[in-house]
Amino acid sequence: MENVKIAIWGFGAMGSGMARMLATKKGVEVVGVCDMHPDRVGKNMYDVLEIEQAGRPDAIIRDKIEDVVYEGSCDLCLIATDSFTKKAFPKIKYVLEQKINVISTAEEMAYPQAQEPELAKEIDRIALENGVSVLGTGINPGLIMDLLVVCLTGCMTNVESLEAKRVNSLSPFGPAVMEEQGVGMPLDEFNKRVEEGTMAGHVGFAESVGMIADAMGWKVDKFEQQMKAIVTDVDRKSPYGFAAAGDVAGVNMTGQGYVDGEVKIDMIHPQQIEPEQVGVNTGDYITIKGTPEVNMSITPEVEGGLGTIAMCVNMIPLVINADAGLKTMIDLPVPRAIMGDFR
Amino acid sequence: MENVKIAIWGFGAMGSGMARMLATKKGVEVVGVCDMHPDRVGKNMYDVLEIEQAGRPDAIIRDKIEDVVYEGSCDLCLIATDSFTKKAFPKIKYVLEQKINVISTAEEMAYPQAQEPELAKEIDRIALENGVSVLGTGINPGLIMDLLVVCLTGCMTNVESLEAKRVNSLSPFGPAVMEEQGVGMPLDEFNKRVEEGTMAGHVGFAESVGMIADAMGWKVDKFEQQMKAIVTDVDRKSPYGFAAAGDVAGVNMTGQGYVDGEVKIDMIHPQQIEPEQVGVNTGDYITIKGTPEVNMSITPEVEGGLGTIAMCVNMIPLVINADAGLKTMIDLPVPRAIMGDFR
Ligand SMILES: NC(=O)c1ccc[n+]([C@@H]2O[C@H](COP(=O)([O-])OP(=O)(O)OC[C@H]3O[C@@H](n4cnc5c(N)ncnc54)[C@H](O)[C@@H]3O)[C@@H](O)[C@H]2O)c1
Ligand SMILES: NC(=O)c1ccc[n+]([C@@H]2O[C@H](COP(=O)([O-])OP(=O)(O)OC[C@H]3O[C@@H](n4cnc5c(N)ncnc54)[C@H](O)[C@@H]3O)[C@@H](O)[C@H]2O)c1
Repeated sequence: MENVKIAIWGFGAMGSGMARMLATKKGVEVVGVCDMHPDRVGKNMYDVLEIEQAGRPDAIIRDKIEDVVYEGSCDLCLIATDSFTKKAFPKIKYVLEQKINVISTAEEMAYPQAQEPELAKEIDRIALENGVSVLGTGINPGLIMDLLVVCLTGCMTNVESLEAKRVNSLSPFGPAVMEEQGVGMPLDEFNKRVEEGTMAGHVGFAESVGMIADAMGWKVDKFEQQMKAIVTDVDRKSPYGFAAAGDVAGVNMTGQGYVDGEVKIDMIHPQQIEPEQVGVNTGDYITIKGTPEVNMSITPEVEGGLGTIAMCVNMIPLVINADAGLKTMIDLPVPRAIMGDFR
Repeated sequence: MENVKIAIWGFGAMGSGMARMLATKKGVEVVGVCDMHPDRVGKNMYDVLEIEQAGRPDAIIRDKIEDVVYEGSCDLCLIATDSFTKKAFPKIKYVLEQKINVISTAEEMAYPQAQEPELAKEIDRIALENGVSVLGTGINPGLIMDLLVVCLTGCMTNVESLEAKRVNSLSPFGPAVMEEQGVGMPLDEFNKRVEEGTMAGHVGFAESVGMIADAMGWKVDKFEQQMKAIVTDVDRKSPYGFAAAGDVAGVNMTGQGYVDGEVKIDMIHPQQIEPEQVGVNTGDYITIKGTPEVNMSITPEVEGGLGTIAMCVNMIPLVINADAGLKTMIDLPVPRAIMGDFR
């Protein structure tokens, strides 16, 4: 039986991590990589990763997707380039039209129905037309503040309301994330950017809320979210970040899904560098009110980078075997670490 | 659109609880009940439950299944009569042959491939032949020590080993459970019954281990389990149980799945009355070693009775919509509390 063949589009932190993970697995191989970064183009993926090729075929990084993904070139393409459905859409469309399955890391693709219902319909149509399937996943959205919540409600006869809280450290992340999350900014600059709408913060609350509500049959009649600076009162320093006392050490995002006029889905997601320094315990917490009540915690929080890499790679066989169309995590069997053969 | 039609076979603690839950839901109705207990036979389910019928059709409890379940009578039958696949088999076979889907509470049916591979094949064949599907589920096996473990491995690039621990109180349970778990027995009687093989303890470790291993692609080359009395050093009293100091207050079950000669799946499940009295904190704990590590806890533990009732009822639409055949929890989308319409 032939190996499962994978292409990777976007060889940044996530894409390269997936390649690294796939190199440890059986029955699967990376057959092509597309990235536009000039430092990588033309190089063999194994050299860039500095890992053993161990008899696997070369995977030269190309800057033109047409040289990597075309009909018959692979079984599935992992796309790790974007956060927003609108930006990911032309890439997803191109791959689906080659009759190749897609897994996307774009946060909004975890439940594109929430903010891009028209594009979601269009993606579903293209996937169906080409007999392949497409899934957006990652650690969050994708698991911690949505699928895991849904799964835990499964043992409840009645749910009144729920809260998902992810308290994590930004310290392991690089300069891009420091910039995105405002680490080190003076507070007034942060607030100005929030007002201008140029602070990204966490992308995904609308998607997580939409997925939970869809799974349970709740109708969200209003969704709101807020972004607030976490100002530090001591100097904090992480490998790629520094926040002086009085400046911004991270972002606290909160969001609410209203059902029948009440907040039934409450999302809380403070992210900052060096939380331990100020006595903040990181973790993932799910509290569901109803019958019976469920109070879950994962401490420390599941590491976001590795978690996203694993979710995407572990979902490969489930997406390849799914019926054609646009899928979300609530449509497919549960994710699982694949420790055996991918075939 | 017509309501989803449900029959219930076995109107004990679980079956009657499912009826009670279904009476609070939309788009679904109980159309028939079978139980052999003379106190219930001939009575309308709503009178037995002492709840409002609210315009729903009568559901008279019958002692002959042929009067309740026959082709066209309903969409799915909940079977809550047995723990073992061998005993549940003729009942499951009968219902499937009426071209009706099945959800079973039998612990061994959560993954019948583990201890009854021949019967599992036969059940799959009958379900396929009749174009319907069958699932075994419940709180444990079904969720806490298996599906939830599997789901959490999904965010890991590599799993070295895992431990699932459920520490629960037996205090809410009735006389049957007190008897089954040896509550109040002198230690030597307990040990004698363990030796004779007449102590049931927890049924499901082989199934949970089998399900986890199957999901992840691990091959279990050895499975073992142990049953030990939890002897109390103080008198303990629960509504239906009493254990004098020196006697048995519950059972500690442990189990191990070996993969490549090592224990990779470790199961720990102490159950006792009034654990708080001796400072035992109840909860569900999952610890997965690997990358990244996951340490989950749910405190207190998810209540077993309500949890099982909810799991069975919430899986109804997923089983009705599944492809034909024998399914386990790892084959279907995640369970979810259904707060909207069942149709
Ligand atoms: N759902 C989740 O939980 C989750 C978790 C992590 C990351 N993400 C998202 O996934 C995306 C990727 O994350 P990352 O950390 O790897 O980012 P990154 O910036 O490290 O990598 C992106 C890579 O894509 C390449 N790229 C971008 N556009 C391209 C194009 N048109 N053609 C070829 N290459 C292109 C870039 O050169 C870069 O190497 C981000 O948008 C991130 O927000 C989601
Ligand atoms: N997987 C799990 O997590 C889980 C959880 C709870 C219970 N269970 C199992 O589910 C089963 C049911 O549990 P329960 O607490 O409701 O037990 P119970 O003893 O309260 O009820 C069983 C009912 O089935 C009826 N019955 C038995 N055989 C019958 C037959 N042939 N025809 C008609 N009626 C029949 C009995 O009269 C009784 O009312 C048990 O075997 C239990 O171990 C599994």
